[in-house]
Amino acid sequence: NVVDSIEECFPLKDTHTVSWINIDGIHRVDIIEKIGKQFDIHPLVLEDILHTNQRPKIEDFGNYMYIVLKMIYSNENNEINSEQISLIMGENFVISFQEIEGDTFEPVRKRIRSEKSRIRKMGPDYLTYALIDSIVDNYFIILEKIEDKLDLIEDEVVSSPTPDVLRNIHSLKWEMTYLRKSVWPLREVINSMTRTESNLIQESTRIYLRDLYDHTIQVIDTVETFRDILSGMLDVYLSSINNKMSEVMKFLTIIATIFIPLTFIAGVYGMNFEYMPELEWKWGYHLILSLMFLTVLTMVVYFKKKKWF
Amino acid sequence: NVVDSIEECFPLKDTHTVSWINIDGIHRVDIIEKIGKQFDIHPLVLEDILHTNQRPKIEDFGNYMYIVLKMIYSNENNEINSEQISLIMGENFVISFQEIEGDTFEPVRKRIRSEKSRIRKMGPDYLTYALIDSIVDNYFIILEKIEDKLDLIEDEVVSSPTPDVLRNIHSLKWEMTYLRKSVWPLREVINSMTRTESNLIQESTRIYLRDLYDHTIQVIDTVETFRDILSGMLDVYLSSINNKMSEVMKFLTIIATIFIPLTFIAGVYGMNFEYMPELEWKWGYHLILSLMFLTVLTMVVYFKKKKWF
Amino acid sequence: NVVDSIEECFPLKDTHTVSWINIDGIHRVDIIEKIGKQFDIHPLVLEDILHTNQRPKIEDFGNYMYIVLKMIYSNENNEINSEQISLIMGENFVISFQEIEGDTFEPVRKRIRSEKSRIRKMGPDYLTYALIDSIVDNYFIILEKIEDKLDLIEDEVVSSPTPDVLRNIHSLKWEMTYLRKSVWPLREVINSMTRTESNLIQESTRIYLRDLYDHTIQVIDTVETFRDILSGMLDVYLSSINNKMSEVMKFLTIIATIFIPLTFIAGVYGMNFEYMPELEWKWGYHLILSLMFLTVLTMVVYFKKKKWF
Amino acid sequence: NVVDSIEECFPLKDTHTVSWINIDGIHRVDIIEKIGKQFDIHPLVLEDILHTNQRPKIEDFGNYMYIVLKMIYSNENNEINSEQISLIMGENFVISFQEIEGDTFEPVRKRIRSEKSRIRKMGPDYLTYALIDSIVDNYFIILEKIEDKLDLIEDEVVSSPTPDVLRNIHSLKWEMTYLRKSVWPLREVINSMTRTESNLIQESTRIYLRDLYDHTIQVIDTVETFRDILSGMLDVYLSSINNKMSEVMKFLTIIATIFIPLTFIAGVYGMNFEYMPELEWKWGYHLILSLMFLTVLTMVVYFKKKKWF
Amino acid sequence: NVVDSIEECFPLKDTHTVSWINIDGIHRVDIIEKIGKQFDIHPLVLEDILHTNQRPKIEDFGNYMYIVLKMIYSNENNEINSEQISLIMGENFVISFQEIEGDTFEPVRKRIRSEKSRIRKMGPDYLTYALIDSIVDNYFIILEKIEDKLDLIEDEVVSSPTPDVLRNIHSLKWEMTYLRKSVWPLREVINSMTRTESNLIQESTRIYLRDLYDHTIQVIDTVETFRDILSGMLDVYLSSINNKMSEVMKFLTIIATIFIPLTFIAGVYGMNFEYMPELEWKWGYHLILSLMFLTVLTMVVYFKKKKWF
Repeated sequence: NVVDSIEECFPLKDTHTVSWINIDGIHRVDIIEKIGKQFDIHPLVLEDILHTNQRPKIEDFGNYMYIVLKMIYSNENNEINSEQISLIMGENFVISFQEIEGDTFEPVRKRIRSEKSRIRKMGPDYLTYALIDSIVDNYFIILEKIEDKLDLIEDEVVSSPTPDVLRNIHSLKWEMTYLRKSVWPLREVINSMTRTESNLIQESTRIYLRDLYDHTIQVIDTVETFRDILSGMLDVYLSSINNKMSEVMKFLTIIATIFIPLTFIAGVYGMNFEYMPELEWKWGYHLILSLMFLTVLTMVVYFKKKKWF
Repeated sequence: NVVDSIEECFPLKDTHTVSWINIDGIHRVDIIEKIGKQFDIHPLVLEDILHTNQRPKIEDFGNYMYIVLKMIYSNENNEINSEQISLIMGENFVISFQEIEGDTFEPVRKRIRSEKSRIRKMGPDYLTYALIDSIVDNYFIILEKIEDKLDLIEDEVVSSPTPDVLRNIHSLKWEMTYLRKSVWPLREVINSMTRTESNLIQESTRIYLRDLYDHTIQVIDTVETFRDILSGMLDVYLSSINNKMSEVMKFLTIIATIFIPLTFIAGVYGMNFEYMPELEWKWGYHLILSLMFLTVLTMVVYFKKKKWF
Repeated sequence: NVVDSIEECFPLKDTHTVSWINIDGIHRVDIIEKIGKQFDIHPLVLEDILHTNQRPKIEDFGNYMYIVLKMIYSNENNEINSEQISLIMGENFVISFQEIEGDTFEPVRKRIRSEKSRIRKMGPDYLTYALIDSIVDNYFIILEKIEDKLDLIEDEVVSSPTPDVLRNIHSLKWEMTYLRKSVWPLREVINSMTRTESNLIQESTRIYLRDLYDHTIQVIDTVETFRDILSGMLDVYLSSINNKMSEVMKFLTIIATIFIPLTFIAGVYGMNFEYMPELEWKWGYHLILSLMFLTVLTMVVYFKKKKWF
Repeated sequence: NVVDSIEECFPLKDTHTVSWINIDGIHRVDIIEKIGKQFDIHPLVLEDILHTNQRPKIEDFGNYMYIVLKMIYSNENNEINSEQISLIMGENFVISFQEIEGDTFEPVRKRIRSEKSRIRKMGPDYLTYALIDSIVDNYFIILEKIEDKLDLIEDEVVSSPTPDVLRNIHSLKWEMTYLRKSVWPLREVINSMTRTESNLIQESTRIYLRDLYDHTIQVIDTVETFRDILSGMLDVYLSSINNKMSEVMKFLTIIATIFIPLTFIAGVYGMNFEYMPELEWKWGYHLILSLMFLTVLTMVVYFKKKKWF
Repeated sequence: NVVDSIEECFPLKDTHTVSWINIDGIHRVDIIEKIGKQFDIHPLVLEDILHTNQRPKIEDFGNYMYIVLKMIYSNENNEINSEQISLIMGENFVISFQEIEGDTFEPVRKRIRSEKSRIRKMGPDYLTYALIDSIVDNYFIILEKIEDKLDLIEDEVVSSPTPDVLRNIHSLKWEMTYLRKSVWPLREVINSMTRTESNLIQESTRIYLRDLYDHTIQVIDTVETFRDILSGMLDVYLSSINNKMSEVMKFLTIIATIFIPLTFIAGVYGMNFEYMPELEWKWGYHLILSLMFLTVLTMVVYFKKKKWF
């Protein structure tokens, strides 16, 4: 349910059921402070919730755990963006803070609404797992989009290696670095959740966390593979550019090396010496033309033999 | 034996002998669920069996172990593909799930059929070892095929460094990354099988597992060596390309530097000034021709001395 | 308060309140030696305070801790410089030594002066935390300045890739190495402060130190990201340079390959043979001009088809 | 002594002295199987002895240790080859298996024959040490040979950077990788011999093993240094090639840029216009020649100033 | 004091004071053997003292410690050399062996001679510390010399990037590798001295060893920084070379592209057709000259716009 004021949620703290409070947007500092007082949250945690440049991390405060995550999504311009999600998991409640309003947790909400779902039977640790799981699932969606972009570039890199392609490769590489920076610490977070000795995490949930851990490893593997592929593409790009250039240069070379000697011969018989016997020969002109033709032929054969074109 | 319905296998669970159930293809979700219920397998394991993008891993559930592996094979187009193999090893049974139907485990079947084989005397841990061993043996076959491809490319890279060769090198490099991604976690799997404290693995089997571990290390070593060789080939490729190009450029340089001054000389005596004394000399033409010849000679000697050709 | 002689500070040692003595500049060796005697500091520590090329480190001497840090600031020429800050934290005092006079600790002073601040209620460990925090905050300011420089270079690297840009990239890269060298050990310092078993650090302060630790991790992350970006820029720079060069070369190629054959044709009809039938044709000249025009056209079409310009 | 049949060695098993049985060549599978039965060796060990592509490793079977090593030698073509040496060390015997017949262990034999040598007083662990030591000594000999090759290439790389030199560098690099692959696990083998808790290794032998360990570290250090040197050589090679090429290109540039304008001037006065006043000047020809000379002079001075040659 | 025969030192072994015996040069094998017998040194240690290609290491023999170090000095040709220093530290003596005679330990001697120095009051562990300290101080001197060389090269690399500069960069890089190889194990040596449980090292000396450890870390840091700087210089070198080359090529391009069309025009009007109307125009010559001038102008403007020069 959407509530009008945050105070409506406070009685939930003392019930025996598991409550999930989701805060859409973190611009209402007063609300966050009220929650902090009510649920007895450390002031540094509240500060961290408000500052959206945190690295993913987990902190155990005994009676609650504070988890920061990065939700990855691609915006209208098809660029990768990230949103900070903060989760506070207590004994009978989970509070989630989203940096911007969105439908990230819609699948979890659906599962809660369905009567028979496992999520209704288990504790706040399983709910936390479900929330993180929906975030990790988003990574896979983003990675698929990136794979499509990679396929596009792969074709272009050989057919038309323009500087734009280079810029695209570099921007994808940067996106990989960006993803990596948010998914490596995420792995650490889930790993320490799996291994924690806190009794906020029940034994039966750990196997789900291990499964989640495997998923993040898969994300990391894919990111690393994409990075490798991009490095390979850079090589192919540079080599394609180089190849185009040499093709052009070879053409110049062949044209120039064929015509430079011919032009010289023509120049010789354009000299104005008074005594040049060849000039007066009847077939002189035709002889010279034949000589030129022979020169060209020799060169072409030589080039062919050397496999220069 | 091939059975018609999975139910025929269930009585095997309560016998004292070791049973091996092999499921060919994982498209029959209902069968896998039935097995899951009968053998009391955790639902997450069943999910993992059905999703074929798992990393190789091992999970110990106390009364059974779940192992995921990647079988590598080369398809008709000579490309490397992988198939997911899931193994569930209990106290008196082994269940194996193959992603696609195939004869991967044929050598194991043969050994079971032969009366005197060690595999008939030992427990499910030894059978599991034999199954994994047959998978690792496949890696060696693939590596030999890759070695053949490497030899082919090695010759081409020097003799005819075309962009196709570059593409082949990069595709082999990618295959190496692919192999690496499935064999590194495999090493971890076998290592943790060797070191596990679970009593599903008997002491006498551990030495076979250590041997298997050595084999995976050999696979990894070979993969790393191939990667090194491919990197070296890339260098040689680029250098060959470069070499070809400079050969062409040098030819242009030599032709151009020889003929450009000659053409200039011819140009000078093609000028139409009224007072050009050389033009009226009787041996003017022959003098100039000799001068040109001398110029060429000087240059050729100079180039030879500089070792430019 | 600013005191005239160091002796005025000595009674503070025996009070129950927390005292902070800040020494501006370390050129007055005698003062530092007096403090050393009065507060019973190990001579090696005094030596380290005077030598300003220490790496950030922390040393626990039981009844006091000695911490060396690097304050980063950018000087008038917009270059990065560092100043060594030494902190000695005892049970009821903190002594700070600044390499050069400056207002680094002004924000801390302000907080101390405000009546209600937490800093007045807590011990010397919290004061030490506040001092280090103000130093770490400075890193963020420097990183923002560097980000501005990066943005500037990013534009230039594509539009006008001059050698100056290369030098700027390399100097920024060097600054990153410099920052890294002072911030990696800083991380270690704060980490060991968080984990120390010394009772100079109280439990309630540890969470602030952990927060500080997160900040240094963020600094490190940013530094590493900037290094990656700079490496990418180097690639783009080299590729831009290359691109400019090939553009020039292509232009030469096209001009040369077009005009070299034309010049040859002109040369042929500039020969002085007595019997050259074409010369006497009425439309010879116009025919040759048309032939030349056709040659140009063919070439341009060929180049267009090959996408050479 | 050389014995005719392996059975002659079996009584040695029960004596109190230390016996060393050396098997030259491993083609006689029956002999190896007899030894295996007699000395109670695990079948997997026998398999490993016969398969010569093992990595160096050590395995402790309680009453004996199995050690695999790689002997490095250079064959007639001056290429590096390796031979697998297997050692089985029991309480009162050492059995060594050589892949091919050879005099590897000659120095050890000599030391055994000399009356006063330490090797006669100590146990099978010291003998094993002596055998491994003679193998490690061989590494040093190979490294010296490689150093000679490096010196040779170093000179060539600057004076005549031909593609052959590149191929030599790459083949040496490959040899380094090969050496590395056999010496890194060797280090592990010796390290675990030094640290083993097995009572097959006596305390007094450990210091010799530590010394041997230092030697392998030296081998590794040298191999790594050679790899660094080879990488440096590759750089110098590429730079030399580049340098040669630019020298050629510069020459072309200078010749071309000097003569192209001159040829143009000559071309202008070779035009056949009826009204060209300069052509009728008495000193026109000499003026133009002087103009050409001046142009050349200006260019040469400009090039000199720009340090282009 | 300099003694004539080694026997004069032996009584020192049984005094209660700390004795320091320094052996200059290790060519007198007999002396070293006598010391070995007298002070009960293990034969392998004596061997290590004589072989001067040891890596820095420390070995604890219970009643004495054996330490090998590398003293770095620059010889007359300004090249880096190293000398092996062996130290044997017992309960009341220190024996040092220098590979070659030299004044390395002069500063320590001076401090011993001064009455009030700490070195006279403390044990052999402090003396050992002082000796190692004087060796580490030498590293700093060498690093300063290298810094000077770096500054020199830095200027040259931009102004005159000759192959000599490249060779200098590579030789400095090699020196860095050399330094690194001797200083990394040195760090390990000092670290294990600091952490040893042997009672040869007293608690009060440990703080000096920690200080020494910080110094070696500084040396390592500086070496790594220099390596980074050298890598950067290589980049700048290659880029400078490239830059020079493109400058030359651009000049050729501009000269060639300007004059090639002009030469063609001149060639056209040098043709000998009987009917070429332009040739008879009164202002034909001047028109053509103007046309040529216009062509040049257009090109220059185009090049300027493209920023080609």
